[in-house]
Amino acid sequence: MQFQYENSFEVKDKIQEKMVAILPIGAVEAHGPHLPLGTDNFLAERLSEKLAERLNAFVLPTLPYGQVWSLKNFPGSINISNESLIVFLFDIGESLYRQGFRIFAMVNGHLGNAVAMKEAARKLYEKYPDFKVLYLFYPGTSSTVAEIRETKSSHSTYFHACEIETSYMLYLAPEFVNMEKAINDVPNIQLSADVTPTPWEEFTETAVLGDATLATYEKGEKVIKVALENMVKLIEDMKNSL
Amino acid sequence: MQFQYENSFEVKDKIQEKMVAILPIGAVEAHGPHLPLGTDNFLAERLSEKLAERLNAFVLPTLPYGQVWSLKNFPGSINISNESLIVFLFDIGESLYRQGFRIFAMVNGHLGNAVAMKEAARKLYEKYPDFKVLYLFYPGTSSTVAEIRETKSSHSTYFHACEIETSYMLYLAPEFVNMEKAINDVPNIQLSADVTPTPWEEFTETAVLGDATLATYEKGEKVIKVALENMVKLIEDMKNSL
Amino acid sequence: MQFQYENSFEVKDKIQEKMVAILPIGAVEAHGPHLPLGTDNFLAERLSEKLAERLNAFVLPTLPYGQVWSLKNFPGSINISNESLIVFLFDIGESLYRQGFRIFAMVNGHLGNAVAMKEAARKLYEKYPDFKVLYLFYPGTSSTVAEIRETKSSHSTYFHACEIETSYMLYLAPEFVNMEKAINDVPNIQLSADVTPTPWEEFTETAVLGDATLATYEKGEKVIKVALENMVKLIEDMKNSL
Amino acid sequence: MQFQYENSFEVKDKIQEKMVAILPIGAVEAHGPHLPLGTDNFLAERLSEKLAERLNAFVLPTLPYGQVWSLKNFPGSINISNESLIVFLFDIGESLYRQGFRIFAMVNGHLGNAVAMKEAARKLYEKYPDFKVLYLFYPGTSSTVAEIRETKSSHSTYFHACEIETSYMLYLAPEFVNMEKAINDVPNIQLSADVTPTPWEEFTETAVLGDATLATYEKGEKVIKVALENMVKLIEDMKNSL
Amino acid sequence: MQFQYENSFEVKDKIQEKMVAILPIGAVEAHGPHLPLGTDNFLAERLSEKLAERLNAFVLPTLPYGQVWSLKNFPGSINISNESLIVFLFDIGESLYRQGFRIFAMVNGHLGNAVAMKEAARKLYEKYPDFKVLYLFYPGTSSTVAEIRETKSSHSTYFHACEIETSYMLYLAPEFVNMEKAINDVPNIQLSADVTPTPWEEFTETAVLGDATLATYEKGEKVIKVALENMVKLIEDMKNSL
Amino acid sequence: MQFQYENSFEVKDKIQEKMVAILPIGAVEAHGPHLPLGTDNFLAERLSEKLAERLNAFVLPTLPYGQVWSLKNFPGSINISNESLIVFLFDIGESLYRQGFRIFAMVNGHLGNAVAMKEAARKLYEKYPDFKVLYLFYPGTSSTVAEIRETKSSHSTYFHACEIETSYMLYLAPEFVNMEKAINDVPNIQLSADVTPTPWEEFTETAVLGDATLATYEKGEKVIKVALENMVKLIEDMKNSL
Repeated sequence: MQFQYENSFEVKDKIQEKMVAILPIGAVEAHGPHLPLGTDNFLAERLSEKLAERLNAFVLPTLPYGQVWSLKNFPGSINISNESLIVFLFDIGESLYRQGFRIFAMVNGHLGNAVAMKEAARKLYEKYPDFKVLYLFYPGTSSTVAEIRETKSSHSTYFHACEIETSYMLYLAPEFVNMEKAINDVPNIQLSADVTPTPWEEFTETAVLGDATLATYEKGEKVIKVALENMVKLIEDMKNSL
Repeated sequence: MQFQYENSFEVKDKIQEKMVAILPIGAVEAHGPHLPLGTDNFLAERLSEKLAERLNAFVLPTLPYGQVWSLKNFPGSINISNESLIVFLFDIGESLYRQGFRIFAMVNGHLGNAVAMKEAARKLYEKYPDFKVLYLFYPGTSSTVAEIRETKSSHSTYFHACEIETSYMLYLAPEFVNMEKAINDVPNIQLSADVTPTPWEEFTETAVLGDATLATYEKGEKVIKVALENMVKLIEDMKNSL
Repeated sequence: MQFQYENSFEVKDKIQEKMVAILPIGAVEAHGPHLPLGTDNFLAERLSEKLAERLNAFVLPTLPYGQVWSLKNFPGSINISNESLIVFLFDIGESLYRQGFRIFAMVNGHLGNAVAMKEAARKLYEKYPDFKVLYLFYPGTSSTVAEIRETKSSHSTYFHACEIETSYMLYLAPEFVNMEKAINDVPNIQLSADVTPTPWEEFTETAVLGDATLATYEKGEKVIKVALENMVKLIEDMKNSL
Repeated sequence: MQFQYENSFEVKDKIQEKMVAILPIGAVEAHGPHLPLGTDNFLAERLSEKLAERLNAFVLPTLPYGQVWSLKNFPGSINISNESLIVFLFDIGESLYRQGFRIFAMVNGHLGNAVAMKEAARKLYEKYPDFKVLYLFYPGTSSTVAEIRETKSSHSTYFHACEIETSYMLYLAPEFVNMEKAINDVPNIQLSADVTPTPWEEFTETAVLGDATLATYEKGEKVIKVALENMVKLIEDMKNSL
Repeated sequence: MQFQYENSFEVKDKIQEKMVAILPIGAVEAHGPHLPLGTDNFLAERLSEKLAERLNAFVLPTLPYGQVWSLKNFPGSINISNESLIVFLFDIGESLYRQGFRIFAMVNGHLGNAVAMKEAARKLYEKYPDFKVLYLFYPGTSSTVAEIRETKSSHSTYFHACEIETSYMLYLAPEFVNMEKAINDVPNIQLSADVTPTPWEEFTETAVLGDATLATYEKGEKVIKVALENMVKLIEDMKNSL
Repeated sequence: MQFQYENSFEVKDKIQEKMVAILPIGAVEAHGPHLPLGTDNFLAERLSEKLAERLNAFVLPTLPYGQVWSLKNFPGSINISNESLIVFLFDIGESLYRQGFRIFAMVNGHLGNAVAMKEAARKLYEKYPDFKVLYLFYPGTSSTVAEIRETKSSHSTYFHACEIETSYMLYLAPEFVNMEKAINDVPNIQLSADVTPTPWEEFTETAVLGDATLATYEKGEKVIKVALENMVKLIEDMKNSL
């Protein structure tokens, strides 16, 4: 399942058989006092492994750096520009296509990567129209998330180090969570943050967007399972149409 | 030691204290029948960890994709262009500098990355002259390598999946080596390979450049220890001159 | 109010006084049988004029080309790549800053421009931190839109040539709407359209995403007035904080 | 005739029939006290409309921003770099070709755009050799201009806000001209201005290069009619050879 | 005078004293049967040497490749794109500035280089405003050329391998001219060649634009001396104003 | 033999016959007190001429600017970035291919150009797989160099203005050597110079890396003859396999 554990002599046939390569992509980014900098990497990686198991697919080594413009001034964040991320992802995709893969599923653990992933996918599509490239960020989970929430979301699309993301971690990578340090910090995010460049230090000191103390394994499990089922279905449909 | 295990609240002081960030960088590339595609990643990562321990430094998450032009047509290889790799490494370096690091040691497990790493380092130097950026590929080990060899090198600068690299793996990441599959395959590399673009399939079918069956833990230990001492000394000298 | 009607001898003082430049940006793109290719240009332009009146600001000439990747295969669409759009917008912004403007409000009539506008704004922010750049696409109107709808939205973020957008046109640029040709065409947009490159011809033949026959002047007025109030408030707050 | 007034359902056949797309391209730039910043936009637009009528062609929405390096420090000028303009024009051209147009006539109102337009045309030619791309700046009018002049030209290729350009405006867009403010200002342009970067503030305070008070409707009519005839003939010859 | 003959130990003081670096830039391009491919290189080089003598300046080694888009399909032509030429010239200029030069005179032997040279000069000006960069192509010679001509020019700005350019060669580099092979070939260049990409094979088979048999040493001498005087004056004025 | 001496009428057949174009590429760079700034240009040019004679090939005009990052702060050095050099070499190669050449031998006189030359060669190979592009820097001479040395090399790969390079000059371009000024200056180059950006002023004031006083014509002849034989053989083998 781990692509990099394979050897070159045997991998060719396996690629032909599996057809699907999964790339976990995360970031190194501030996630409050209770979650590690690598949170998005751990989420992407663990979720990718579950997905690979279900699909009998290969998991590629995690790309552990992403676009973290909004939080780049917080301690520990490492920021890759959209331009750099786009060409890097494009190169990975192009190699996978030439190696014989026909489905390339990028499993994203960090919202900030979404723009670059979609752009890279489109560029790959323009060059290789029969190559299916997916950019997956917990697809089809919005209603489940709404359901499990005990507190209002502090923003329409952002969730970060909060009740939700911490729950994902408790389910997928609990050994990296320190719930004793979890805090409740609901920022007041103005409409202006959606319409002008707004580094997050302008509205939060902690990078926590909500009440992390409400996170539970069960909440995480509920959402992640929905995400996983959706991803499985999306990719199996594509496999069937190859 | 693992940077991504840290949290944002505590990491700032630790950066001030440690000053050194180590980036393992490898590749996904064909390494014959006995070594996995991720060989260069495992080497870079394990060596980085040893280095970090000695220096009380941070290890960043491994960048597991590199420039593998020469072997890109072998099963399993994933190739990043020099341009893409340069900008990606530059972005990582720039963030590290802004986070307060003053020494950025890139530990390379794959010769093909050398050009991009050096170019990225120079660009960082031009922009941040007080930032020490290192590109390290087993520095200062040529005489030790010559000493331990039982067979002649098949090329003046290349070594690959052979007596030497397999020995490194036996020392650093033995669980990924299958010595039963190790082969002896000495290619005849013409001078032309050094002066015109020459994908390796032109001179080898296996991607093994030598006699991998002669690899031992002891040989690997001997070279890696020299490399490690040299890296420790190089970086400590730089720390002292900050 | 129209910047390009001004002459160079008098404009300098007016820039100092007004401080705000508004750029309408739209696209040339298929909008079904009842709306013209320039729909997004007319919307952006008319809304910008209303905004300029309220703010005593300058309106720049409309940039009438945008990123229409999704609809680029439909008759009449003209597509600008994200890269080209980003540098073009950056150049406009840089000139405005050097001319003395301190607020640059881009009023967008076309969702596809959003990525490029945000990226250009961030690049301007990095270079000129005291320059406020806004990317405005009917901000803060989601609840009002939900309220006026008589039919379910066919997608969580897309609306196109439908009940909603046609209503905007009926309010802002009725002379370009031919309600006799308006159709009801609700496509079935799969989840896959959100996770893999999906030109719209895969799910619609008309480019109409909903029931355009339900559009009315009143619906348009209701939403546009909210959008306008929000834009006025956002920019006035920024003016006050200059 | 106005492309953006068309709808997607009917435009396809019309493109097949007309074959010619005309793009007015101007600039926002200082033009002295008597002409507006948008002078070059109005000229390009009005001339394009006359041309479209004669050719039964489509006029695209005006691209109202251009390369104004020389005057970029004058109040009101907005400057697009050559690089940005080239890629933007290339993208428009590429879409037009894919939409079925076979002749793309760029009607230029601003000399500073000439380099970018020619370069974009060449790039389109390299990629689509059967696509005729024209860059038109009052073609074939030099002898007529020489004839109507009452004053010597202040430069061999530049004319700006002077007897000539003001006459064009009096003919094409008189409502934007304020002849009461027209001035006579003949700069002394040294040879050095042709051989080293020379922003125009080095030789003029007004951006008027000549005696604007001598401008008349008749002079403008005379030159513009020649330009128009030449453009009509050039494009009709191309249409005939398609 | 020849910069590359100097040694590093002595050159620093000489740069301070001379202040002016002259770069001959030409092209490898078809020039008919009587002139060599390197014609533009020889012209640029010889003229640069005369200029350096007059100014006590340094001549840099000739850059012998240029932009020859129009003639790139003729036997022997080597074409550098504008983009490549711009960055290359910029790099040379930047080094010269850092070395202490304050005037950088590019002496051009090939019209096709003009766009790239001007663009590179502007970029250098933006970064180093106190650096005078000149792009010189026989400046101020149009009336003298008109005077010596026995035949009408076949184009308003082009002259190539004709009465004029051959005369320059007879004066500056006669050993490379074979007048026995000189031909008279006046092409009919349509207006279209000025408004749409037109490789020269569309109107000439020889690349000779006129009557080369009329070329003489005296004609060349007359024009080149005017060019030289103009260049000397331009640069001396700049030196005086440093 | 000199390509630029040919004329366009006759060169086509000769290209078909010769098939091989040789490009000398050097640099303008500090070479101590006894060697001129153009040393690498003279070496590349003279060696190219010898090679062309042996192969009945064409020599292109010397590209006299190269990447001299390491010595760019020394008096007289002119530095071209790798990016600029790569695109320039690519353009030359592409033209040569289109002109009918099938072997493009770049003869390098300056180690700093090696990275750009290899990268340009690879890009040409990707686009034109049947085009043989060579990057030649005294190939196959390491054992002969070791043999003739009277002093230890001061670095494993660098040699500069020393016993070796001065000997090359004494053999190939003696009129440019001033042995009376030759010095013995052996720098102490630390391992750090190989692993972090290190401008040479950090370890040498003279740019001489060894004992230039030991240089002789005979030493130069010995190595250059080996280099020449190797280059002849490499290219003849390629010609035979066309």
